Amino acid sequence: MSERNENSKNPIVAARSENFPGWYASVLKEAGWLEVGPIAGTIVMKPGALRVWKEVQRSFGSVLEEKGIEDYIFPSLIPEEIFAKEQMHLDGFVPDIAIVTILGGKSREEGLVLRPTSETIITNWMRGQIRTPNDLPLKVHQWGNVFRWERRTKPLIRDTEFLWQEGHTAHSTQEEADSFALEMLESYKTFLQETLAIPVMAGPKPESEKFMGALRTYTLEAMMQDGRSLQLATSHNLGQNFSRVFDVKYRLPDGLQEYVWQTSWGMSTRVLGALVMVHGDDTGIILPPRIAPDQVVLIPVAKDSQDSQVLGATFAVRDELKKAGIRLIVDTGEERLGEKRYRYERKGVPLRVEIGAREIESNTILLARRDNGEKVEAPQDRGPEIVAEVLGEIQESLFAKAAQRTVDKTVWVNGVEELQQAVKDGKFALVHWDGDGRVERSIKLNSGATIRCFPDGLRGVGALREIGTDTLTGQVALFAKAY
Amino acid sequence: MSERNENSKNPIVAARSENFPGWYASVLKEAGWLEVGPIAGTIVMKPGALRVWKEVQRSFGSVLEEKGIEDYIFPSLIPEEIFAKEQMHLDGFVPDIAIVTILGGKSREEGLVLRPTSETIITNWMRGQIRTPNDLPLKVHQWGNVFRWERRTKPLIRDTEFLWQEGHTAHSTQEEADSFALEMLESYKTFLQETLAIPVMAGPKPESEKFMGALRTYTLEAMMQDGRSLQLATSHNLGQNFSRVFDVKYRLPDGLQEYVWQTSWGMSTRVLGALVMVHGDDTGIILPPRIAPDQVVLIPVAKDSQDSQVLGATFAVRDELKKAGIRLIVDTGEERLGEKRYRYERKGVPLRVEIGAREIESNTILLARRDNGEKVEAPQDRGPEIVAEVLGEIQESLFAKAAQRTVDKTVWVNGVEELQQAVKDGKFALVHWDGDGRVERSIKLNSGATIRCFPDGLRGVGALREIGTDTLTGQVALFAKAY
Repeated sequence: MSERNENSKNPIVAARSENFPGWYASVLKEAGWLEVGPIAGTIVMKPGALRVWKEVQRSFGSVLEEKGIEDYIFPSLIPEEIFAKEQMHLDGFVPDIAIVTILGGKSREEGLVLRPTSETIITNWMRGQIRTPNDLPLKVHQWGNVFRWERRTKPLIRDTEFLWQEGHTAHSTQEEADSFALEMLESYKTFLQETLAIPVMAGPKPESEKFMGALRTYTLEAMMQDGRSLQLATSHNLGQNFSRVFDVKYRLPDGLQEYVWQTSWGMSTRVLGALVMVHGDDTGIILPPRIAPDQVVLIPVAKDSQDSQVLGATFAVRDELKKAGIRLIVDTGEERLGEKRYRYERKGVPLRVEIGAREIESNTILLARRDNGEKVEAPQDRGPEIVAEVLGEIQESLFAKAAQRTVDKTVWVNGVEELQQAVKDGKFALVHWDGDGRVERSIKLNSGATIRCFPDGLRGVGALREIGTDTLTGQVALFAKAY
Repeated sequence: MSERNENSKNPIVAARSENFPGWYASVLKEAGWLEVGPIAGTIVMKPGALRVWKEVQRSFGSVLEEKGIEDYIFPSLIPEEIFAKEQMHLDGFVPDIAIVTILGGKSREEGLVLRPTSETIITNWMRGQIRTPNDLPLKVHQWGNVFRWERRTKPLIRDTEFLWQEGHTAHSTQEEADSFALEMLESYKTFLQETLAIPVMAGPKPESEKFMGALRTYTLEAMMQDGRSLQLATSHNLGQNFSRVFDVKYRLPDGLQEYVWQTSWGMSTRVLGALVMVHGDDTGIILPPRIAPDQVVLIPVAKDSQDSQVLGATFAVRDELKKAGIRLIVDTGEERLGEKRYRYERKGVPLRVEIGAREIESNTILLARRDNGEKVEAPQDRGPEIVAEVLGEIQESLFAKAAQRTVDKTVWVNGVEELQQAVKDGKFALVHWDGDGRVERSIKLNSGATIRCFPDGLRGVGALREIGTDTLTGQVALFAKAY
């Protein structure tokens, strides 16, 4: 710690408690995650962030592979005629879309919409793929970039262009479609909680917040350290809204035809922003080991950076850790130890392992945890085993800390005033709600809070007065300010 | 072979020799590689093609990683003001660019160019990254989608939207930049020849064919089976053309400032089209083992698809092959053997391995090569070793066959008439050329042939009459019809 103060001033501009947005922007910059692009709301994703996104692709990609869902690439440009077919969808996206009107120097009568999402072009394509029930379910998926011209932008949270994955399926019955939408919600939940160590609340969205064109939207909401909610993944039961307008039908043996039932579901680079806002501290980013591109940074400690004894021991440890499947980098650079330590702290590498003359003598290695600063001395011959163990503890501890925070800052409220106070205090508010949109809108107007979801497992729990009426029949709603 | 004729009619519409474009389109469809999108020139990339592209990303990505070149993601939309800075670049791309003029329902005064390539936005970004010689060389790279509104389109060869990789570097001297452009050309050449088994001719482009905005363009050209040339990768020495207009300078210790010297280089999904057009036969695609997502298809042969003895033996062989690092799929489906065989032939899986009662009895497995139909019986306990060996032979044999074809169909010509005849016969023509653009243009007009490159290692070779003049001082030029 003393080295750090000697060598580097903390370049993070603010403590989280003082200026959360300022802290967030500063942390991203100092970790080498991104820079802003030349147009407001666009970003240059640097290796720091992109390497984490690749781990997301690898990890969640294997979930899709296990389900037998294969990757496709669909065109980015959607003819306006196709994009405009589903009226609610069109109305919902028009304020945000970018349209190409000039192609090869010539103006086009009909514009091409730069996809904000691909339900329209994929449903249009599905028409040619489906004839009989044997062609169902049809499940396709793509990783790609999408474009939404939002006014209020925030790096990784709301960019005008961002990377994401989107899945689209067609089924023969409504029940199967709804159950598949829920299956995907569950897969996201598992991924977010177990791999990203981010606790989430799961449940359907109210009418006012659902995806435009969907029958039902299921969401996963997570609490950031400032008490705001961030929607991390959604899964939609699209009903037959798209299949009807795109005429996607299958023919039953008796000759009758039925429109297919569809789902779509997606998760974006926003999860990278969530990793920062859920786990970060005043020094910088903290990455959960399961998603960290580098789980360990290994640093030789010697006055002379060419010290052959220390370097030899370092490389021996490196080989052992690699053999155990641990992702690591070795930093043999000329910089002072304090600077190295601090750089990897800012980047959020979960575990630092040091080896110097003292460790060589005692046949040990020194482990320093990023999340709580704790140091552990491990016998060299048990190095890989103990490193793996400590990485597991960090993973669990990050989740536990975030879960505790979410529980501590989630309160049952009694009526509108309590609700608004809770939200003002940076809390999640749970309340019975009778479905009255006027109450919902007035709360939004007065406190900025919206219904994030009707959390699963909370229906009927918490015998408090319902807002809107004096009864207790409504669903439990989670109100919070959202990003 | 008999099974095939019994069970499946050949769905490939034409032999290569009769109708090469028809054969190409049909092969792509039958292999499940792609479908056309709703706008002319756009495609839906299906798992068949996308899985090969992912292998390209994995394989060439590791080349970049070894060079320490990291991945970034830059914005897809480039403000017109930035795109228009380099005049030659602008002039070259204007006929092909798509421009967004409507954002969120409002018309914009200044349009946003949907990137056809990223020299402008990346050089603009570099200005903020470079101060001193210590910041050089700067090397960045991205995998992404780009847009070129070409009139003459052809799936994978010339799509209006396609996937590619593009690298961009800045150096302190012209020599270093040129030598790095050549280093990248060499890396592409090695990748194309050794991994994709595609022989290429390497060399600089003539003025008439170089990248707009470059000082020099180096190219790799390959002969397709119809004798046309396809440009598979290019590497550009950009000189200071972009750094001057974007004001990207570094300051020397004496206070003087110098503009940086740049390169850029790229390779696209066009290489997938080349794999088909170089190696395919009248049955379908043939993939070189090093790039095949599935190197082996393993098929149990039994009357009853649930035959436990055959299935047991099949899974034992699968485990052994997997352990040896061979990428394989097992097809235990209900279909008839002939249909299975034929499906994987169309898809181009390089090696089929079968195991049935006969093989179990003799403790063997049956290997059938996709490239030449040859069958090999291998003892089961040497299975992985022999499979690896045969895969190596297929890789070599595909390269050798393509190389032989390229040599056979490349001729030295004597004057313009011979040149035009050679091109008409579907050949590459080598000739001395004195640099006279009028001769070049007249040849293009009369035969469709262009100078593909000045092939490396051929300078001064072949003492034939130079076209344009009667001397022998010019460079050796490769003329061919190009895609």
